[in-house]
Amino acid sequence: MTGIHTSGEKHLMIVPGRAYPELADNIAAELGTQVLPTTAYDFANGEIYVRFGESVRGTDCFVIQSHTQPLNKWVMEQLIMVDALKRASAKRITVVAPCFPYARQDKKHQGREPISARLMFDLFKQAGADRIMAVDLHASQSQGFFDGPVDHLLAMPVLLEHVRTLVQDRPVAVVSPDAGRIRVAEKWANKLGSTGLAFVHKTRDTTRPNVAVANRVVGDVEGKVCVLVDDMIDTGGTIAEAVKVLRSCGALEVIVVATHALLSDPAVERLSTCGASHVVLTDTLPIPENKRFDNLTVLSIAPLLAKAIRAVFDDGSVTALFD
Amino acid sequence: MTGIHTSGEKHLMIVPGRAYPELADNIAAELGTQVLPTTAYDFANGEIYVRFGESVRGTDCFVIQSHTQPLNKWVMEQLIMVDALKRASAKRITVVAPCFPYARQDKKHQGREPISARLMFDLFKQAGADRIMAVDLHASQSQGFFDGPVDHLLAMPVLLEHVRTLVQDRPVAVVSPDAGRIRVAEKWANKLGSTGLAFVHKTRDTTRPNVAVANRVVGDVEGKVCVLVDDMIDTGGTIAEAVKVLRSCGALEVIVVATHALLSDPAVERLSTCGASHVVLTDTLPIPENKRFDNLTVLSIAPLLAKAIRAVFDDGSVTALFD
Amino acid sequence: MTGIHTSGEKHLMIVPGRAYPELADNIAAELGTQVLPTTAYDFANGEIYVRFGESVRGTDCFVIQSHTQPLNKWVMEQLIMVDALKRASAKRITVVAPCFPYARQDKKHQGREPISARLMFDLFKQAGADRIMAVDLHASQSQGFFDGPVDHLLAMPVLLEHVRTLVQDRPVAVVSPDAGRIRVAEKWANKLGSTGLAFVHKTRDTTRPNVAVANRVVGDVEGKVCVLVDDMIDTGGTIAEAVKVLRSCGALEVIVVATHALLSDPAVERLSTCGASHVVLTDTLPIPENKRFDNLTVLSIAPLLAKAIRAVFDDGSVTALFD
Amino acid sequence: MTGIHTSGEKHLMIVPGRAYPELADNIAAELGTQVLPTTAYDFANGEIYVRFGESVRGTDCFVIQSHTQPLNKWVMEQLIMVDALKRASAKRITVVAPCFPYARQDKKHQGREPISARLMFDLFKQAGADRIMAVDLHASQSQGFFDGPVDHLLAMPVLLEHVRTLVQDRPVAVVSPDAGRIRVAEKWANKLGSTGLAFVHKTRDTTRPNVAVANRVVGDVEGKVCVLVDDMIDTGGTIAEAVKVLRSCGALEVIVVATHALLSDPAVERLSTCGASHVVLTDTLPIPENKRFDNLTVLSIAPLLAKAIRAVFDDGSVTALFD
Amino acid sequence: MTGIHTSGEKHLMIVPGRAYPELADNIAAELGTQVLPTTAYDFANGEIYVRFGESVRGTDCFVIQSHTQPLNKWVMEQLIMVDALKRASAKRITVVAPCFPYARQDKKHQGREPISARLMFDLFKQAGADRIMAVDLHASQSQGFFDGPVDHLLAMPVLLEHVRTLVQDRPVAVVSPDAGRIRVAEKWANKLGSTGLAFVHKTRDTTRPNVAVANRVVGDVEGKVCVLVDDMIDTGGTIAEAVKVLRSCGALEVIVVATHALLSDPAVERLSTCGASHVVLTDTLPIPENKRFDNLTVLSIAPLLAKAIRAVFDDGSVTALFD
Amino acid sequence: MTGIHTSGEKHLMIVPGRAYPELADNIAAELGTQVLPTTAYDFANGEIYVRFGESVRGTDCFVIQSHTQPLNKWVMEQLIMVDALKRASAKRITVVAPCFPYARQDKKHQGREPISARLMFDLFKQAGADRIMAVDLHASQSQGFFDGPVDHLLAMPVLLEHVRTLVQDRPVAVVSPDAGRIRVAEKWANKLGSTGLAFVHKTRDTTRPNVAVANRVVGDVEGKVCVLVDDMIDTGGTIAEAVKVLRSCGALEVIVVATHALLSDPAVERLSTCGASHVVLTDTLPIPENKRFDNLTVLSIAPLLAKAIRAVFDDGSVTALFD
Repeated sequence: MTGIHTSGEKHLMIVPGRAYPELADNIAAELGTQVLPTTAYDFANGEIYVRFGESVRGTDCFVIQSHTQPLNKWVMEQLIMVDALKRASAKRITVVAPCFPYARQDKKHQGREPISARLMFDLFKQAGADRIMAVDLHASQSQGFFDGPVDHLLAMPVLLEHVRTLVQDRPVAVVSPDAGRIRVAEKWANKLGSTGLAFVHKTRDTTRPNVAVANRVVGDVEGKVCVLVDDMIDTGGTIAEAVKVLRSCGALEVIVVATHALLSDPAVERLSTCGASHVVLTDTLPIPENKRFDNLTVLSIAPLLAKAIRAVFDDGSVTALFD
Repeated sequence: MTGIHTSGEKHLMIVPGRAYPELADNIAAELGTQVLPTTAYDFANGEIYVRFGESVRGTDCFVIQSHTQPLNKWVMEQLIMVDALKRASAKRITVVAPCFPYARQDKKHQGREPISARLMFDLFKQAGADRIMAVDLHASQSQGFFDGPVDHLLAMPVLLEHVRTLVQDRPVAVVSPDAGRIRVAEKWANKLGSTGLAFVHKTRDTTRPNVAVANRVVGDVEGKVCVLVDDMIDTGGTIAEAVKVLRSCGALEVIVVATHALLSDPAVERLSTCGASHVVLTDTLPIPENKRFDNLTVLSIAPLLAKAIRAVFDDGSVTALFD
Repeated sequence: MTGIHTSGEKHLMIVPGRAYPELADNIAAELGTQVLPTTAYDFANGEIYVRFGESVRGTDCFVIQSHTQPLNKWVMEQLIMVDALKRASAKRITVVAPCFPYARQDKKHQGREPISARLMFDLFKQAGADRIMAVDLHASQSQGFFDGPVDHLLAMPVLLEHVRTLVQDRPVAVVSPDAGRIRVAEKWANKLGSTGLAFVHKTRDTTRPNVAVANRVVGDVEGKVCVLVDDMIDTGGTIAEAVKVLRSCGALEVIVVATHALLSDPAVERLSTCGASHVVLTDTLPIPENKRFDNLTVLSIAPLLAKAIRAVFDDGSVTALFD
Repeated sequence: MTGIHTSGEKHLMIVPGRAYPELADNIAAELGTQVLPTTAYDFANGEIYVRFGESVRGTDCFVIQSHTQPLNKWVMEQLIMVDALKRASAKRITVVAPCFPYARQDKKHQGREPISARLMFDLFKQAGADRIMAVDLHASQSQGFFDGPVDHLLAMPVLLEHVRTLVQDRPVAVVSPDAGRIRVAEKWANKLGSTGLAFVHKTRDTTRPNVAVANRVVGDVEGKVCVLVDDMIDTGGTIAEAVKVLRSCGALEVIVVATHALLSDPAVERLSTCGASHVVLTDTLPIPENKRFDNLTVLSIAPLLAKAIRAVFDDGSVTALFD
Repeated sequence: MTGIHTSGEKHLMIVPGRAYPELADNIAAELGTQVLPTTAYDFANGEIYVRFGESVRGTDCFVIQSHTQPLNKWVMEQLIMVDALKRASAKRITVVAPCFPYARQDKKHQGREPISARLMFDLFKQAGADRIMAVDLHASQSQGFFDGPVDHLLAMPVLLEHVRTLVQDRPVAVVSPDAGRIRVAEKWANKLGSTGLAFVHKTRDTTRPNVAVANRVVGDVEGKVCVLVDDMIDTGGTIAEAVKVLRSCGALEVIVVATHALLSDPAVERLSTCGASHVVLTDTLPIPENKRFDNLTVLSIAPLLAKAIRAVFDDGSVTALFD
Repeated sequence: MTGIHTSGEKHLMIVPGRAYPELADNIAAELGTQVLPTTAYDFANGEIYVRFGESVRGTDCFVIQSHTQPLNKWVMEQLIMVDALKRASAKRITVVAPCFPYARQDKKHQGREPISARLMFDLFKQAGADRIMAVDLHASQSQGFFDGPVDHLLAMPVLLEHVRTLVQDRPVAVVSPDAGRIRVAEKWANKLGSTGLAFVHKTRDTTRPNVAVANRVVGDVEGKVCVLVDDMIDTGGTIAEAVKVLRSCGALEVIVVATHALLSDPAVERLSTCGASHVVLTDTLPIPENKRFDNLTVLSIAPLLAKAIRAVFDDGSVTALFD
C-alpha cells in the first residue's frame, strides 16, 4: 500500500483562561502535568489577544475558564481561545465551564426574551468546541442545548461528604429555597436518608431573580437540622430569607449548601448575618479573601474536574464517577 | 430597472396529519377556511405516502399533527409532510405539535441516554420546519432545543376558566403531584388567589416514570378543595395515588386538571375510580368515546391554536394571547 | 512538550436495535464478539427509551437495525440510539440499515411529493450518524443522498452462488419483472453467462407500487430456466404475475430471487402458489416461521455485513469484497 | 406600533451566463423583459470576473447557464454569479441548469469514485442557491441530491408534439438504446399509444459510457416506425449503433429523439450517416451551425423554461405544466 | 385555492443597544421614526437581560451597537438581542456595527493565534444575523468573513467634505501613518487631486499594535498641508509620532483624519499636544465630553447609516451612496 | 468491556491532480514515498472522471493541485477528488493549493461583485476538505475565509536565500511595485537589513488588475540594488513598468522576485526585455520550457511543501518552519 504509516498517539492539553488561573493550575496538578504556556492580554480598547506557546496540532484540549465577573469578557476570551485552537489544528476541543454562563436564562419567561443559555452553547459550538463540561447546570435540560456530548458533573458527592460530618446523626430536613428546586432537595433527602423535605413558598419577579417577595415554609422543619440546598448563590437574598424563616419555624440549625458562589453584593453580608450555622460552597468561581467569612467552607472542585477530564481523555466512564 | 414587478401576497395553509384530523378541521373552521386537500396512506410494508392536492408555492404552512399512538408513525408522517412542503417551495413551515413528542426525555437522567426531545426538534428542523408551535411543554427549557422561533402556548387560560366554575368561592389548595412540578402549581395558586400550595412527596424510578413508590403530602390541604395540576396524564398512576392521599388527608374534594390526555391503560379505570370529583383535560390528543367517563370534561384546544396561528400569520403578538 | 501522552487505540462496538436482534447477534458472532448490552423498551404512550450498559466513549459504533414492521418505530429507535451514542462521546457512528427504509420513495413521481429516502439519510445524519451501510438500495443513486461515506453492499454474490446450484448447466434467461430494473437483470445475465435477457412490460399506478395492470414478456424465454430478479418483494403481486406470464410463454422453470423479503400480505400465498420452482431470499428483514413455505430458501446476510464492518473498522477495502 | 411600514413587492430578474447568452435572451423575451445587465470576462490567467449593472436587492433571481464546453468554466461562472447575487442581497436565487452538469455521475459505479452530480448540487447550495431548475435529469433521483426545491422540467411535451407529426398514424415501437432507460421509453409508449416497446441489449464499460460493445434488439420492431429515445446524445456511438441494429431488424424508419445535444465529436458524423430518418433535439445546450445537419430538427427549450420561471415567480404550479 | 390570502407588508425596526443609545436615536430621527422600546440591564453577576416591548414578528430589524468599552460586553449584548429577535420571529436581522469589533485581528500574524474578526462574524451569524453593516473595516477582505451580504460603508465622503474646507487650495500631501495603509491614502490622494503621497516607515511589534519603534518619512511632504489618514485611532501613539516626524520634515500643517475614535488613554493627550492643526473624526464610537479637545471635530455618522438602512429596507442601491 | 480492540495507526497519502503532476511527484519523493495511484480523464463533453486505485479508508490525504490554466477545470478536478476521498472514508483531507485560485478577488472592489476567494474556500469545505495549505496568499486575511485550519506557508525563506547571493554586500533598496504591497516589502527590508524602502505610485483600474496607468517612485533608490518583490506575476505589466521607472531613477540593478509565476502573455516578453538583471520565481505553478528565459531562476517549492505536510501529519509545528 502506498504512503507513509506511523502509529497513533493521544495528547492531552490543559488550556488556561485568565479569569481564575489557579483553577487550571490545580487541575493540571491533580493530573500531574502543567497548563499549556499561553499569552493573553487586553489591547487598550478592550479587545483580547491570545496566543499559545507550543504546537497544539493533534491534541485533545480542555479549555478551562471560570465565568466570574466581568463575565462577558471571560466568555469572549474562551471563545477566542477555542478559535485559536481550532485554527491551530487541535484534534478535539472541550470547553470546561464549571459555572456555565447565562445558565439561568434557559427559557423564555415572557415573549421577546432571548434564551441566552442556548446561545452560549451555540457560540461555543460555532467557535469550534466539540464538547462541553460543566458542573450543576441550573436546569439539567440545558445539556440538550448542545448538539454533542456534554459532561454534566455533579458537585453533590463533594458537598455531601462534608455536610454529613456537620449533620452527624441528628434529625435532618432538606429544604429547597423555592418551589422550582425541590427535585434537587429530594435527591439530597434520599442520599441523607432524611424523611424531612420542605420548601419555601415565595413569589419572585420572574424578570429579576434576585428580588424575593414573601416567604412561607411548606413542610415540617421544627427541631431539625435544616440543610438548605441551592445550585448557586448570587446576591443571597433568597437564601438569607429562607434561613430566617426556617429559624423562625423552629429549625435546630440551618446549613446552607450551594455549588456556585456568585456572591454578588451584598451576598457576603447577608450570608454571614442571616443565622446560618454553616455555609458550604465550591470554587467553581473564585472566592477572593475579602469575600470569605467565619462560617464559610469552600471545597475545591479541581479534583472532580481532573478526574472527569482524565476519564474523557482515556475514554473511560464519567458516569461511573457519580455511582 | 430591468425585470418584472408585482405586488407581494401572503397565503395561509392548514396542512392536516392523519393522527387526529378533526383537530386540523376544527382549527380551519375557527379560521374560516378548510384544510389543504391531502392524500396520505400507508404502503403494505408500513411506509407512509403523502401528496398534496394543490400548489403550496409561496404559502405559509401550518402542519397539524397530534402525537397519539402509534406515536413514532405520526412523528414520521409529519416529518415527511414537512419534507414534501419544503420541496414544493412552501415559503414558511410551522410544525404544530400540541402535545410535543418525547417532551419528557428532555435531559439525561443517567449516562448514555438520549435527549430525545432535542432530537425531535432537530429532526423537524432538518426536514425543513422553520418554526414550532406547541402547548405546555413538559419543561419550558425545551423551547431552547430549537434554533428558531417556538410558539409555546399555555392551556392554563382555557383550563382555569372552567376550574373557577367548579371551585366557586370555597377554600382551595393547589397541589402538585410530585416535587418537580410545584412551580406550575405555584402559578395556578397565584391565578386562583389561593394561599394553599402543597405537593406529594414520592420516589419515582427515574427510568420508568409511571411507577410511583411512596406518597406523603407536604403542605396543608385539610378541608380544602384540592386542584391537582399536571401537564400530562399517562397511565394515571401518580395522579390516582395523589388523589387518594389527598382525600386521606382530609381534602374536601379533588379536581384533577391536566393539558395532555395520554390516557394509556389503565388510566381511564384509575381516574374514574380514584375519587376525584372532576377530571378536566384538553384535546391536544384525541380522546375517543371509549375513554370518556362520567366526571370527565374535555375542553377544545382548537380555538387557542387557531388564534395563535392567525397571530403568527398576521405578524401579531402571540404573547398578547396570554396577558 | 507540555501535557500528557498515551498511545492511541481503536474499539469496535456492535449496537443492537430491537427489530431483529438475531441479526446483530449473528454479526457479532461472525466477528467473534458480543453486542453492546443495551436497555430499550416502550413507555405506555409509545415513546421509546434507550440506554447503553457500558461506556461507549471513543468507540467505533455500528448500530444494527432491520426495518421491518412497524417500520417507523424502528427508524425512530435507531435515530434515538444514534443520538444517545453521540451524546455519550462515541468516536464514529455507522448506521447499518440492511433494507434501507423508504428506499423506494427516492424521487418525486409527481409534484408535491416528498423524497422520503433522502429525508431518511438526512435524519440519520442529523441524529449523529457519520456513515451509512446498506444492502442493495432500490436505486444506487440513493448513495448520493448522504453527505458522507455510504457502504453500499451487494447481495448478489451471496444469492448468485446458490442460484448457480439450482440452474446448473441448463439454458437460462434472466428476467426483470418490470422495465425499471432491467439493468440489474443485465448484471445477473453477465455473471451467469446468459445470452437471454427479458422483461415484463406492464403498467403500474406510480403512486401505488403494488398494483400491476397488464403484462407482456419482451424477450425470448421459451424453453429456458428463468431467473426472475428483483431487489425486494413486498406484496408479491408483480412477481407472481411475472411468474405466471413467464410460464405461459413456455419457461422451463422460474426461479425467483430477491434481496429484501418484505412479504406483506398476501405475499406468502402468492409466492407459494404462483408456480415458481424456487424462491431465494436473504434475511435483511426477519422472516418469521409462519412466513416460510416449502420452496423458499433464506440465505443469511450476516456474514456479508460482518465482513464489511470488519473492513470498515480495519480501514480495509469494502470494494474488494465484491471483486 | 414603532417603526416604518410599506407594502411588499416582488421583482423578477433573469441573470445571463456567458455560455449561451441567446438562451437567457430568449427566455427574457418570452417573459416580455430583458436580462440583467451583466459584466463578465476572463482575467489573463483564466479567472472569471463578474459584476452586475443594477441593484439586485430583494429580487427573485434566475441565473441561466447552459453547461456546454468548456463545462467546468461555465459551472464556476454560475457559482461566482450566485455568490455575487447572495452578497448583493438578492432575496431568492434559482440556478437554471437546463442540462445539469455531471448528471451522469450520479452514483458510484465502483469504489473510490466521486458522486459528482451530488457535488454539483452541493456547490450551488454552498454558493447561495435556494432552488434548482433543470430539464430531464439523467436520473430523477438526482432531485433528491438538493436540500430544497428542484423544478424538474420534462422536455417530453415539447418533443412529443413534433414526433407525432412525424409518425402520423403508422405502427410505432418505442425503443430504449440500452437496458437502463426503458422506463422512459415506457412513458413515451404510453403517450404515443404504442403497444411496441423494445430495447437494445448491449454491454457498456461502466467507467467509459461512450464505448459500446455488442448489440441485440429485445422486443419486436419489424415493420414499425421506431422512436429511439434517450436523455442525451454525447458522442452518438450508442444511438448510431442502435439505429443500425434496428434497421437491420426490419424497422420501417428510425426517429431519434433526445433532450440534451452534447454532440461531442464524432456525434454529428455518426448521426448524419447512421440511417435515422429524423433526429429531434432541444437547445438546452447550444447547437452551433457547424453541428447542424440535414435531418436534424432543433426545438427551442426557452418557452418551457419561461413558463416554469413565471410559475415559480407567481407561486403558481409547475406541475400543472406537465398535466 | 384553499387557505387565507392577504397582501404582504414590510416593517422596519431600529433596535438600540445600550453602548451608545444616542446613535440609534439619531438614526431613527433621520428616518423619521423611533427606536424599538427595549428593556436591557445587567444582573448582579454581570449577565445581561434583554426584552423587547413590542411584537417584532415579520419585521426587518437593524440592531445598532457601538463597540466601545467594555467592548466584550457590548458584543455579547448585541448577540443576545439578535437571539431574542430570532426567537421572536423577526423576518430579517441586520447587525449594525459601525466600528466592527476585533476588526484588526483579521489574520494570523503568527502561528497559534485566533482570527477574531472572522470569529465575530461567525458569532453574529450563529446568533441569527442575516446581514452585517459596518463602516470602514480595517481590511476590506473582512467582508468575506461573512457568508451573506455585508454593507461596507465608507466614511470618506463624510470626512472628505470637511477636510476640503480645511485644506482649501493649498498644496497637499496625503500621508499614511504606516506601510500597510498606503492604499487608503492613495484613494484620498485621488479624491483630493493631490500628487503628493507619502508614508511613515516604521517597525511595529506585530503582537502589540500600539508600540511603534522608529519613524522615517518616505515621499515628499515639505511645504505641503499633510492629510494624515487612518481607519482608527487607538492610543494615538502611531499618529502622534507621524505628526511629529511630518512637521520635522517641513510639513506646512498636519490634519489628522480617521473614522473610528477609540481614543484609549493616552490618546487625547497625545493628539492634543502632537502639533496637528486639526483632528477630524466620526462618532462610530461615542466620544464623551472629557475626551473632546480644542482642535477636534467630530462628524456624525448617523445620516450615512440612516441612508444605508433605508436603502436596504427599500431594496435600493447602497453602492449608489458612494458614487 | 464488550467489543473488539486494536491499536491505532496513521497513514499519509499524497493525492495528485493532473494540472502539474511533477509537483506531487516531487513532494512524494521528498517524503520518500509515491503518490496514490489515481485514474483521471475527461469525458468527451468535458466532464472529469476520477477514481483512486487503492483503498483510502482512514488515511490522512493531501490533495495536490496547481491552479494553472485552464484554472476552473483544475479547481473542479480537485473538488471532485475531495468528494471521492470523503465518500471513500478518508480520515482527514487537506487541499494543497500552492497558488490559491481566485486569491486576488478577496473583497468587493465595487458593489455587486463576488468574493470569489471566499467562495473557493467554501467550495473546498463543502466538498469535504478539513484543512487548506497554500503559499503566499494575496492577502493574509484570506486565511480567515476558511472555517478551520489553514497552513499559510511563506516562500520568502526559499527566495531570500537565493536573493542574498545575488545582492551580496551592495547597498540595497526593497521596492513594492504598488501601494498595496509595501508591508511585504517592509518584511523583506527587515530580513535584508536594508534601510531602503520604496514603492511605485500608480493608478490601477480596480476591475482590471493588469492595466497600470502612471508611475512614480516614492522613496530613494538611486545607486542601489533594487529588489522588486511581489506575490505573483500575471501579465508582467506592472512589474516591467516598475523596473523601467526604477532604472530611470538611477537604480544600480533591479532584481525581480515573486512567488507565483502566472506568466500570462505577454509576461515572458515583458520580463525578458524590461531590464531586470534577474527574475526569481518559484514553481507553485508549472513554468514550461517555452516560458523560460535567460535571466530567469526557478526555485522548487516542493521541499517546503513536503516539510509542511510531514509536520502536519506528525502533529509537529508548521510555524517552526518559518522561525
